[in-house]
Amino acid sequence: MKKGCKFGTHRVIEPKGSLPQPAWKIDNDMEIYDNEILIDVQTLNIDSASFTQIKEEANGDVEKIKEIMLDIVSKRGKHHNPVTGSGGMLIGTVEKIGPALEGKTDLKVGDKIATLVSLSLTPLRIDKIKEVRKDIDQVDIEGKAILFESGIYAVLPDDIPENLALSVLDVAGAPAQTAKLVKPGNTVLVIGGAGKSGMLCLYEAKKRAGITGKVICLGHSEKSIEKAKKANLADVYIVADATKPVEVMEKVKEVTNGKMADITINCVNVPDTEMSSILATKDDGLIYFFSMATSFTKAALGAEGVGRDTTMIIGNGYTKGHAKIALEIMRESKALREIYEELYA
Amino acid sequence: MKKGCKFGTHRVIEPKGSLPQPAWKIDNDMEIYDNEILIDVQTLNIDSASFTQIKEEANGDVEKIKEIMLDIVSKRGKHHNPVTGSGGMLIGTVEKIGPALEGKTDLKVGDKIATLVSLSLTPLRIDKIKEVRKDIDQVDIEGKAILFESGIYAVLPDDIPENLALSVLDVAGAPAQTAKLVKPGNTVLVIGGAGKSGMLCLYEAKKRAGITGKVICLGHSEKSIEKAKKANLADVYIVADATKPVEVMEKVKEVTNGKMADITINCVNVPDTEMSSILATKDDGLIYFFSMATSFTKAALGAEGVGRDTTMIIGNGYTKGHAKIALEIMRESKALREIYEELYA
Ligand SMILES: NC(=O)c1ccc[n+]([C@@H]2O[C@H](COP(=O)([O-])OP(=O)(O)OC[C@H]3O[C@@H](n4cnc5c(N)ncnc54)[C@H](OP(=O)(O)O)[C@@H]3O)[C@@H](O)[C@H]2O)c1
Ligand SMILES: NC(=O)c1ccc[n+]([C@@H]2O[C@H](COP(=O)([O-])OP(=O)(O)OC[C@H]3O[C@@H](n4cnc5c(N)ncnc54)[C@H](OP(=O)(O)O)[C@@H]3O)[C@@H](O)[C@H]2O)c1
Repeated sequence: MKKGCKFGTHRVIEPKGSLPQPAWKIDNDMEIYDNEILIDVQTLNIDSASFTQIKEEANGDVEKIKEIMLDIVSKRGKHHNPVTGSGGMLIGTVEKIGPALEGKTDLKVGDKIATLVSLSLTPLRIDKIKEVRKDIDQVDIEGKAILFESGIYAVLPDDIPENLALSVLDVAGAPAQTAKLVKPGNTVLVIGGAGKSGMLCLYEAKKRAGITGKVICLGHSEKSIEKAKKANLADVYIVADATKPVEVMEKVKEVTNGKMADITINCVNVPDTEMSSILATKDDGLIYFFSMATSFTKAALGAEGVGRDTTMIIGNGYTKGHAKIALEIMRESKALREIYEELYA
Repeated sequence: MKKGCKFGTHRVIEPKGSLPQPAWKIDNDMEIYDNEILIDVQTLNIDSASFTQIKEEANGDVEKIKEIMLDIVSKRGKHHNPVTGSGGMLIGTVEKIGPALEGKTDLKVGDKIATLVSLSLTPLRIDKIKEVRKDIDQVDIEGKAILFESGIYAVLPDDIPENLALSVLDVAGAPAQTAKLVKPGNTVLVIGGAGKSGMLCLYEAKKRAGITGKVICLGHSEKSIEKAKKANLADVYIVADATKPVEVMEKVKEVTNGKMADITINCVNVPDTEMSSILATKDDGLIYFFSMATSFTKAALGAEGVGRDTTMIIGNGYTKGHAKIALEIMRESKALREIYEELYA
C-alpha cells in the first residue's frame, strides 16, 4: 500500500507541488493510500454560491445541472466549481480506513460521517446522480470519496435528521465565528440573514450581543425575512439588495441612528456585496466575509477607496468546535429547528 | 456645475448602483462635478501584481505594455486590471477644486499630491505614455485624473524625492498594519520580505517584536535577500518559493524550532501563495494578506481543508496614519533609505 502525505499532496496532478485545494486537478482513483479514509458517499451538499452559479448556467434544468456537475468532477477529480472556486461537503459511510491511521482516528468502518473539509479538495468519483434537491443545494449520488489524514469530519448525531445535519454542518463555521466575534452591546448586521448560515449567525449574535446589543437582519425578499421574523431571530429587519451599497448604507444608518454596525457578517450567495458590507460598518468596525462569492480585491480596494479602516476577515470555514456549536443550535432553539426541518430535513 | 455623490457613484456607467471600485466601467470625462478634484497626472505607480501580469502578457515588450495599459483605460475609464482586479496610485498636481469642497479640504491648486485611493476606482484619461520604468512599476504619462470627495491623498513631502515617495506611498498600508498587529515577543514571517512592501514590513515588525521577538524574511531570489540582509532587516532569512507550501512549511519549522509564526504577512506579487502562508502560521496565529494576488476562496477553503483556525485578514490598503508611518521609515532608517533611493528614486 502506498504511503500518503498528511495533506494529500500525493493526489495532486496539476500543478505539482501545490496542495489539493488550490490544485487544478487531483487524482480520484479510489484505491486508498495508507493514511486515507474511503467514504461511500450518500449526499453532496453543494456550496450555495457554487450551486447558485451552476443553476444559473443550467437555466434551472436538472439534467443540465447533472451534466455540469459530472463535467466538473471528471475534469478536476473533485467538485471544485471553476467559476466560484468553492466546493461544499458530503455525508457518507466509512468504507475503509488506511492502516497508518490505526490508533490515530476514532472512526470505524460503518460510521456515518459528514466531511468538514471542502469538496474543493476532496477526491470524488460520481457513478450516478440519483436526485437533485434544487432548492436546498443537496444532491444524492452513488459514488466514493477520500478523506485525507489532515481532513476533519463529524460523526452524524442520532437526534438530528441526516439531511438537516448536512445542511447545518455545511455552514457550521459561520455561527461558531459569530459566537467568537460578537461581544455584549455590539450592533451586529447579518447580510443574507434569512439564509441557511445567516439565521444561525443571527441566533448566535443575539445570544452574545445580549439585551444591550442590537441585531439586524438584512434579507433580499420579504418572504425569507418573514421566516426569520417568525423565529424572532433579530431586533430589526431590513429588506434591501446587498449589491446596492448606497441603499444598504442609508437603511442601516436609519436603524442605527447613524452609528452603523460594529460587526457585519456577510452570508449572501451572490457577488458584488463587498461595498455594502463596508459602508454599513463603522470605521473601526469588523466585517466577517463568510460568503464564498467575496472578491479579495473588491474588499481590499473598496475599503481603501472610501478611506475606511475597517478590519475585514476572510471566512475560514473552520474554527474549533464549529460542528458542535452549530448542531447544538438545532437542540437549543425549537423555533429554528422547525424552520430548518421544514426546509432541509 | 453638476452635483456629485461623495463616493463617486455619479461616475459609474456599468453596472448601475455599484460603486466606482467594483464597477466595470466609469465615466472619465474630465469636466469636474462640484465635489471633485482634477489632477494633472505626472506618474502612475501600477500595482505590482497588476504590472507583473501586464509585463507577462506583453512578454516584456514596452510598446505592448503601453498598448495594454491604454486599452484598459479606454475600456474601463480607469486603470483597473481585469485579470488581477487591482490598480495602483498616482502623483500629480491639483489643477481644479470643485466649489463644494471649499472649507472642507486643505488642498490648493498647484499642490503636488499622491492619491491614496486605488487607480481601480480613479477616473483617468491618458493622453500619452511618456516613459515606462519597467523594473519599478512606474509609468510617466500626460493625462488627467479625478479624486472623489471620499478619496484620500497625501501632499508630497519636500525631503523625499517624488518617485521614491510614490513607491513608498503605494504600499503604505502594509507597514502601518504591521505596526498595529505585531506585539513584543512575536515571531513574524514576511513572505516576499525583500520586496518594496516587504522590507517596510520587516522594519516595522522588528521594531515592534523587539528583542524577544523573531522576524523572518522569506524571499524568492538570493539576490533580493542580499538587499534585506545588507540593511539588517530580519533576524532570519529564508530563500524559498512561496508557491510550494510544503517546502515553505519545512523551512519555517526549522528556523522556529517547530513553533511556526505567530503572524505572517504576505507581500508577494504572484498567485498561489495562500497555502504557504497558512502552513507557516500557528493554528491560533494571524495572517495578513497584503498581496493583491490573494484568492479569497483559496485562503478560506485552504485553511479549512487542513483544519486550521488561523485568523486571516484582507489587506485593506488604508489604515489611519499610513502615509505618515511609511514615509517616516525613510527618515528613520538610513540603510533602508539608501536601498529605496537606489531602487525607486
Ligand atoms: N466560508 C465557508 O467556509 C463557507 C461554507 C459554506 C458556505 N459558505 C458561503 O456562505 C454563503 C451563504 O451560504 P448559505 O448556505 O447560507 O446560503 P443561502 O441559504 O442560499 O442564503 C443566501 C442568502 O443570501 C441572500 N441574498 C441573495 N442575494 C441577495 C441580495 N442581492 N441582497 C441581499 N441578500 C441576498 C438570500 O436572501 P433571499 O432568500 O431573501 O433571496 C439568502 O437568504 C454562500 O456564499 C456560501 O458560499 C461559506
Ligand atoms: N492591499 C493593498 O492595498 C496593496 C497596495 C499595494 C500593493 N499591494 C500588493 O502587495 C504585493 C507586493 O507589492 P510590492 O510593491 O511590495 O511588490 P514587489 O516589490 O514586486 O515585491 C514582491 C516580492 O515578492 C517576491 N516573490 C515573488 N514571487 C515569489 C515566490 N514565488 N516566492 C517567494 N517570494 C516571491 C519577490 O521576491 P524576489 O524579488 O526574490 O523575486 C519580491 O520581493 C503585491 O501583490 C501588490 O499587489 C497591495
